[in-house]
Amino acid sequence: MKIESLTNKHVKEWVKLKNKKYRDEVGLFLVEGDHLINEALKKGLIKEIISTDNQVKADYYVTDEIMKKISNQVSISSSVAVVKKLEEKEISGKILVLDDIQDPGNLGTIIRSAVAFNFSTIILSNNSVDVYNDKVIRSSEGMIFHINIIRKNIIEFLKEMKDKYLILVTDVVDGENIKKYNKTDNVILIIGNEGNGVSNEVKTYANHKIKLNMNKSCESLNAGVAASILMYELQGDMYE
Amino acid sequence: MKIESLTNKHVKEWVKLKNKKYRDEVGLFLVEGDHLINEALKKGLIKEIISTDNQVKADYYVTDEIMKKISNQVSISSSVAVVKKLEEKEISGKILVLDDIQDPGNLGTIIRSAVAFNFSTIILSNNSVDVYNDKVIRSSEGMIFHINIIRKNIIEFLKEMKDKYLILVTDVVDGENIKKYNKTDNVILIIGNEGNGVSNEVKTYANHKIKLNMNKSCESLNAGVAASILMYELQGDMYE
Repeated sequence: MKIESLTNKHVKEWVKLKNKKYRDEVGLFLVEGDHLINEALKKGLIKEIISTDNQVKADYYVTDEIMKKISNQVSISSSVAVVKKLEEKEISGKILVLDDIQDPGNLGTIIRSAVAFNFSTIILSNNSVDVYNDKVIRSSEGMIFHINIIRKNIIEFLKEMKDKYLILVTDVVDGENIKKYNKTDNVILIIGNEGNGVSNEVKTYANHKIKLNMNKSCESLNAGVAASILMYELQGDMYE
Repeated sequence: MKIESLTNKHVKEWVKLKNKKYRDEVGLFLVEGDHLINEALKKGLIKEIISTDNQVKADYYVTDEIMKKISNQVSISSSVAVVKKLEEKEISGKILVLDDIQDPGNLGTIIRSAVAFNFSTIILSNNSVDVYNDKVIRSSEGMIFHINIIRKNIIEFLKEMKDKYLILVTDVVDGENIKKYNKTDNVILIIGNEGNGVSNEVKTYANHKIKLNMNKSCESLNAGVAASILMYELQGDMYE
């Protein structure tokens, strides 16, 4: 189907998907570019494909002007897809808990590293940035389709898991070297907010404090980097 | 001195410092916020401090409107400083070579991690993003003041160093596990451009290919994350 009017009802729907509230309501989100569309295709999650390019297999063909209105990027892609949100699956494997991560680039980077280092589940606190934010999706490089992401109250989650898992939280002062725990399977790693770290209430549910080996003159690392190195260490020896 | 006019000659100078070409010409750059100003103060690099706050010790007091024009941030700081560019020092210690890094956030993150993991020198290729870009400075969290950064032709640099250093480049297919090299002192680590990796010409100067242990389903990591984990491994046992 060819659409040429900016006021077409489909166009209006697609533009509304830029808004978190509307994404939550309809359970859909947008991805841009071939790489991300292919990842969504592999998972069978595509509702419809919209393109400016007649050579591409799409459900709707639109003008550049319409694509510009749908796209979140400066250099727009020729194709965009409406994708069904991922179903939350049962919790399994190594778990990453994110306590109010705010920066979409950081969340995307952390998702990408979690897949790289074999974490199977991410629990996202209710106040964290939305996974379906376009910047999160882009910086995850499509890895959101390869991991189980669950948004919930993390205090209740940690309460439930306390006896079954080793729960680790970073502490640059009192923490033990993460290498001590790198052979552990039932592990939950908690990563805090970029500015404020892990909240005190959440900290009380951790059973071990850990830290990374680093020069004292550097107070801290970027949140995405710290989370990534910790997950790297916790993957253990599996690919060596 | 109090300045109230947007067309004041000092205001014009400060605004021009947002431009790389002008920064290069005068050897000065801007930092915003107390944390960064303090880091520059400790190193004796401050030329002048500009503030909207009369309680702060500053050389110039300006209106909010002027500060808004000088600042690069949405939520402007009350103080900004004009800082002298860092002098390039002699090459020493572990060396990171960056081959055309483009994203200012990535460069800032890498600088921060380099200090954390005890690299002493960063060699930046001529086509890399400017170190004195405000986003680089911000995401480095002031760590640019704690490391020797040199911009130069990296091919010539590597030619010169080839016999004296172990030169490592990442290769996700043929690389050996980085852990094999983590006790090395005379080491140069090359990190490539975000999209294209390390250029073929630069690669010919490496004497070993290395990679990180990770799940095959993830093609790659964020450039800042990959560089950080490699440096983390190369720091060896020094703080353990």
